[in-house]
Amino acid sequence: MRIALDATGGDLGSELLIDGALLAINKRHDLEVVLLGPEDLLNEQVARQKNAGKETSRLSIVHASQTISMHESPVDAVRKKKDSTIMVGFDLVKKGQADAMVSAGNSGATLAAAIRKLGRLKGIARPGIASLFPSLKDPVMLMDIGANVDCRPQHLFQFAIMASSCSALLIKKKRPRIGLLSNGEESGKGNSLVKETYGLLQESSLNFIGNVEGRDVYHGDVDVIVCDGFVGNVSLKISEGLAEAAMQMLKAEILKSLRAKIGYLFIRKAFSAFRTRLDYAEYGGAPLLGINGTGIICHGSSSSLAICNAIGVAANMIDNNVNDSIMKTLAECTEVRGHA
Amino acid sequence: MRIALDATGGDLGSELLIDGALLAINKRHDLEVVLLGPEDLLNEQVARQKNAGKETSRLSIVHASQTISMHESPVDAVRKKKDSTIMVGFDLVKKGQADAMVSAGNSGATLAAAIRKLGRLKGIARPGIASLFPSLKDPVMLMDIGANVDCRPQHLFQFAIMASSCSALLIKKKRPRIGLLSNGEESGKGNSLVKETYGLLQESSLNFIGNVEGRDVYHGDVDVIVCDGFVGNVSLKISEGLAEAAMQMLKAEILKSLRAKIGYLFIRKAFSAFRTRLDYAEYGGAPLLGINGTGIICHGSSSSLAICNAIGVAANMIDNNVNDSIMKTLAECTEVRGHA
Repeated sequence: MRIALDATGGDLGSELLIDGALLAINKRHDLEVVLLGPEDLLNEQVARQKNAGKETSRLSIVHASQTISMHESPVDAVRKKKDSTIMVGFDLVKKGQADAMVSAGNSGATLAAAIRKLGRLKGIARPGIASLFPSLKDPVMLMDIGANVDCRPQHLFQFAIMASSCSALLIKKKRPRIGLLSNGEESGKGNSLVKETYGLLQESSLNFIGNVEGRDVYHGDVDVIVCDGFVGNVSLKISEGLAEAAMQMLKAEILKSLRAKIGYLFIRKAFSAFRTRLDYAEYGGAPLLGINGTGIICHGSSSSLAICNAIGVAANMIDNNVNDSIMKTLAECTEVRGHA
Repeated sequence: MRIALDATGGDLGSELLIDGALLAINKRHDLEVVLLGPEDLLNEQVARQKNAGKETSRLSIVHASQTISMHESPVDAVRKKKDSTIMVGFDLVKKGQADAMVSAGNSGATLAAAIRKLGRLKGIARPGIASLFPSLKDPVMLMDIGANVDCRPQHLFQFAIMASSCSALLIKKKRPRIGLLSNGEESGKGNSLVKETYGLLQESSLNFIGNVEGRDVYHGDVDVIVCDGFVGNVSLKISEGLAEAAMQMLKAEILKSLRAKIGYLFIRKAFSAFRTRLDYAEYGGAPLLGINGTGIICHGSSSSLAICNAIGVAANMIDNNVNDSIMKTLAECTEVRGHA
């Protein structure tokens, strides 16, 4: 198993990214990681790790001279920067020299490069990005979280197929419960996109449980939540913003009294466990679904643990043939619709 | 100043609602509250409060035999239930017998009744619902939070005008900073609705600061955030769901160790102050904007304090002539566009 890792993308710096790769190969002994970036820089950093006693024999380096920054236009960047880490990485996947690509860089460009190099899965109109959200029970997969901001019902229907197949393998459920994100649980609720999508999902063989509301994301009584990329992106970012603000507000309240400060000393460990549960990074990145290959996008400010987990998720997706499963479900759903 | 209060709507029960009214008249001595609902029931409950020594002289009762439940279709309910608390309340406002109407009942029906009885402000295409969100700085007003799930750019533009006028008076800022909720800060980001709205806002005389992301809602570096009612509803409910889940997760972590439990005893007060900050109810309901009158919608599971605050916000909106201010800003914006 060989996973390509964009070793310059994101806000992290190569050192943290390489730390993530080291954690990953340490966790799984059949795993190799190919680091993508300027050869000299990466050679030097890997050598430093080796000198520090780290096992680096399953790290290799493939040169890529360019990096696509976070604010470049994805389409332009992918067209112009042929020797960027992202393009070189998906090229390795295309040639069979890597099994998957992981990047914490520009997510739009990562998806654009994946589509350009690997193409879409047959029958999939719009590849998208899925992400796991923490909940009071199992993690919940939301798709799309930002790739497709203007969608048609058929696109959302395919998001349900793709996320359901991926979620089934990652959270080990045979028939994940699929909900459609809406402004109310009743079947008549929703904007016109949601109302039309409701009909498609209800007629299908998928395990569709109806509309769900924003508050259901964190309850964990649904496994997959389908929405367009605009709504998904707002949902993800508003959650991140609130989690961050909540921790700051709580800290400010604690600092107001000596009594609370003393209490904090006792409670600190529970606090940090709680932060971990809310930390999206723990779930190891967001799978690109609908591309003819495997790719994972990580948050631009991921930790090395998050990078390690993302590499793990990529390996898991390959082990479980997620794309075969998507194609199978797509065929079943299309067949049923064909017969109808 | 007379505020009509739906004394049967919502999940609360009349007792809690009347408690809210009592708190409100206690806070402000020029205020009267008209309770709407079955006369016998309300008479009995007010008598009980009076016997308990509460000052009830500024409470009055207007009979309404019907209640619109939370799950009725707003349009149907408003047409069929002419003697419902919501319809009777807005009728009082129409006749000048009340200055504003407050309901914790079916929010769609409340807006539908307001439009039916009072009509829209001249020139406003779509009245909507605004809501204050807590942030690390001042509260942030988001509009629309659920009334209009399919919008055109002109509707969002008018939400900006209405929410800006309302926010200016409620949070005491001359020119509230207006942001457009999108999937990225860059001007090219957004779905087609957002991209078109961006142009309208940028050309206007409003204090438009550009696109904002979901995470900006809680930072407090923007005063008004504009979005369609579908996105706004998901944003509100996902926040409620996460805040609730976060408290539960934290509690579960604390209960795992004796040490943390002891710490909790010291920290409890800081905790409850934090919960208060996150509690949307504190902000006193969601103003209906764009109707030819004043109406406030409260959360179906509000506390009596939240009802009291909502009555206070209604009074504040009347004191400050929010509707005049909306009409003035609308005229300015229309004039500029007319000249262009």
